[in-house]
Amino acid sequence: MLDSAVVAPHHAAKIVFNDHSVAEFKFIWLRDSCKCQLCVHEATGQRLLDSNSLDLNIRPKELYINDRGQLEIIWPDASQQEKHRSIFDASWLYRYGQCFMENTYEQQDVERNRPPKELWDREKIKKQFPKLSYTEFQSGDAGLRKWLEYIHIFGIAVIQGVPTQNQEEVREIVNRFAYVKQTAYGLTFDVLAEPKAAHLANTGRYLEHHTDLNYREKAPGLQLLHCLKSEVLGEGDEEAAGGKSFFVDGFHVAQWLEDHEPAAFHILTSTPLRFQIKMDGKRYSQLWPVIALDSHGDLAEIHYNNRTSGPLQAPNNVVIPFYHALKKFVDKLRDPASELVFAMSPGDVVAFDNRRVLHGRTAFNPRRIARHLKGCYVDIDEAYSKYDSLL
Amino acid sequence: MLDSAVVAPHHAAKIVFNDHSVAEFKFIWLRDSCKCQLCVHEATGQRLLDSNSLDLNIRPKELYINDRGQLEIIWPDASQQEKHRSIFDASWLYRYGQCFMENTYEQQDVERNRPPKELWDREKIKKQFPKLSYTEFQSGDAGLRKWLEYIHIFGIAVIQGVPTQNQEEVREIVNRFAYVKQTAYGLTFDVLAEPKAAHLANTGRYLEHHTDLNYREKAPGLQLLHCLKSEVLGEGDEEAAGGKSFFVDGFHVAQWLEDHEPAAFHILTSTPLRFQIKMDGKRYSQLWPVIALDSHGDLAEIHYNNRTSGPLQAPNNVVIPFYHALKKFVDKLRDPASELVFAMSPGDVVAFDNRRVLHGRTAFNPRRIARHLKGCYVDIDEAYSKYDSLL
Repeated sequence: MLDSAVVAPHHAAKIVFNDHSVAEFKFIWLRDSCKCQLCVHEATGQRLLDSNSLDLNIRPKELYINDRGQLEIIWPDASQQEKHRSIFDASWLYRYGQCFMENTYEQQDVERNRPPKELWDREKIKKQFPKLSYTEFQSGDAGLRKWLEYIHIFGIAVIQGVPTQNQEEVREIVNRFAYVKQTAYGLTFDVLAEPKAAHLANTGRYLEHHTDLNYREKAPGLQLLHCLKSEVLGEGDEEAAGGKSFFVDGFHVAQWLEDHEPAAFHILTSTPLRFQIKMDGKRYSQLWPVIALDSHGDLAEIHYNNRTSGPLQAPNNVVIPFYHALKKFVDKLRDPASELVFAMSPGDVVAFDNRRVLHGRTAFNPRRIARHLKGCYVDIDEAYSKYDSLL
Repeated sequence: MLDSAVVAPHHAAKIVFNDHSVAEFKFIWLRDSCKCQLCVHEATGQRLLDSNSLDLNIRPKELYINDRGQLEIIWPDASQQEKHRSIFDASWLYRYGQCFMENTYEQQDVERNRPPKELWDREKIKKQFPKLSYTEFQSGDAGLRKWLEYIHIFGIAVIQGVPTQNQEEVREIVNRFAYVKQTAYGLTFDVLAEPKAAHLANTGRYLEHHTDLNYREKAPGLQLLHCLKSEVLGEGDEEAAGGKSFFVDGFHVAQWLEDHEPAAFHILTSTPLRFQIKMDGKRYSQLWPVIALDSHGDLAEIHYNNRTSGPLQAPNNVVIPFYHALKKFVDKLRDPASELVFAMSPGDVVAFDNRRVLHGRTAFNPRRIARHLKGCYVDIDEAYSKYDSLL
């Protein structure tokens, strides 16, 4: 509800809301936000008003609270045919006016309906293992929402009991909310032991914690891995056969680093490291800090893959500090207390935020383990657009 | 060529090259860069050496220039089985040592083989119109390279005479070097006049200069538009029928702004603007500065679309300066002296860097013009990986 609306100095309207908060809206901003049919295309919701055509010194002809409690402004537009009457609901002004409130500067939060993220270590994730059955996942919007919510909160979610007859089933899962993101590895890719591996993932070798495709201009946000086959062959200890998957919440480790080793945190957030790979005669190369922050200083992306990192290119006085900082970060990553470890069973689909959760696999003996995963990537903003639409 | 290599203070080897330049390489960096078969997987080129396992205080057991002029280091590794001998070519050290040269801090430049970009306005681009025939484009690597080079240099290239029988021909063009990037609009999309348009592009309306998909986490880098049909119907002035395409080099305009209006340039590079759209019940939303710079302060991306920009959310003292700065930028964008304008003919494929070159279309009368474009997007780093492989 609006208590009052008056013209204020400095080209602004001063609005008092009924909770006594006060915001000043610049006239040019109000005119530019006009939602009338001349300014917004009704069918598409896209803006017709060309901001650039506005008089930057525009002032309202009339400005008042109308009898429905809305702010109403009549503008002195150039032509009579295009006389604009802007009508703003109190709730809209209150929401978008947060950044104009006295003593506040709060951006409208697009994620405001989402629950907070929860960073985790081994103990925490074991208590709240984010899994659901394929039946539940398939049961309408509620199942899809639950799964997407797990991914938002924990950066990882497991669907159990996904059919394995169709090797491309993982695409059907993605098609429920978006589309598969193609890469140079194809629409989907196989992870299995191969005699002549073109990629280290396709050997029985231990794969350290890593994020994928750091050498691309934007690493894919969401990765899905569908276990089609995982059999222990022959005699002997199953544990010794190896091949377990592990996942670590990179945001949790980065947060730990910021809290306990702020100098190391600073170096890893400010030193770009080159990631690179050669594939089919093509070279991919990109610079990323190991811990990328957004403009608010919040954790945005983790980039770490020992196998594809290039020689550090930095001022010489940063070289040794960088190695020390990286060691603190990676030691904590590899601490068993950080890890979620489990043997993927046929029918498991693990989906994880590839820019938050690092993944890896213990070594395995390809003569003892027959293992086949089918994977794919998805633009994670597509996943979150769908998630937000279900909230 | 190496003149000398000696152990220096502060855990480094001091190398003098035969052009008298001097670089200091930290031991940990040299050990981490070892290219021996124990450290790098021969078949895949991926690193086997786990940086995190290294002794951060490692020192060479022996360090000398061998009889082939290479730097050779023998390391005192823990186990005798894994004794490492690192061999570095002088040229490799020289290239990667730029950042360790005294008084220099130059990163290895992955784009070093590419010609410089050329920013353009109307006069310049008219003299060097970056076009080639479909026949030339199809003539092996040389044609593909020429086309990709145009895109790198000018941010735009036209192929003429592309067959129009197959409406999806644009995918064949992309498949020569990469794969189509799917979006919520599909693998390809149509731009044509429709009676009930779900998107403003599909009306006869004037479309101002814009970049596409600013509301995604990463706007697609490369866009292709294939003109399948463009006929002027009925009597009267062809010019009056409208429907011409225009393109503007956003980097040129941004550079002009930095040179002539540095305060406006600063505001547009530092103020995030929200871009948003609702589609099929889903909301996409992303913050970008209109002019995004990289960490060196070089132009990286342009984001501007009047139709999808949301209410500015910024401290109140920035609101009016932002509108003034934007007007200076957009007025220059719309200056006819900035524009490349032409009527697309059937068979034309225009490809452009969607994060550098803004595009638009003059209004047209859908009763006079029958117009059909087929478009698609591509990850531009895929295009440049291919381009670099052809240099």
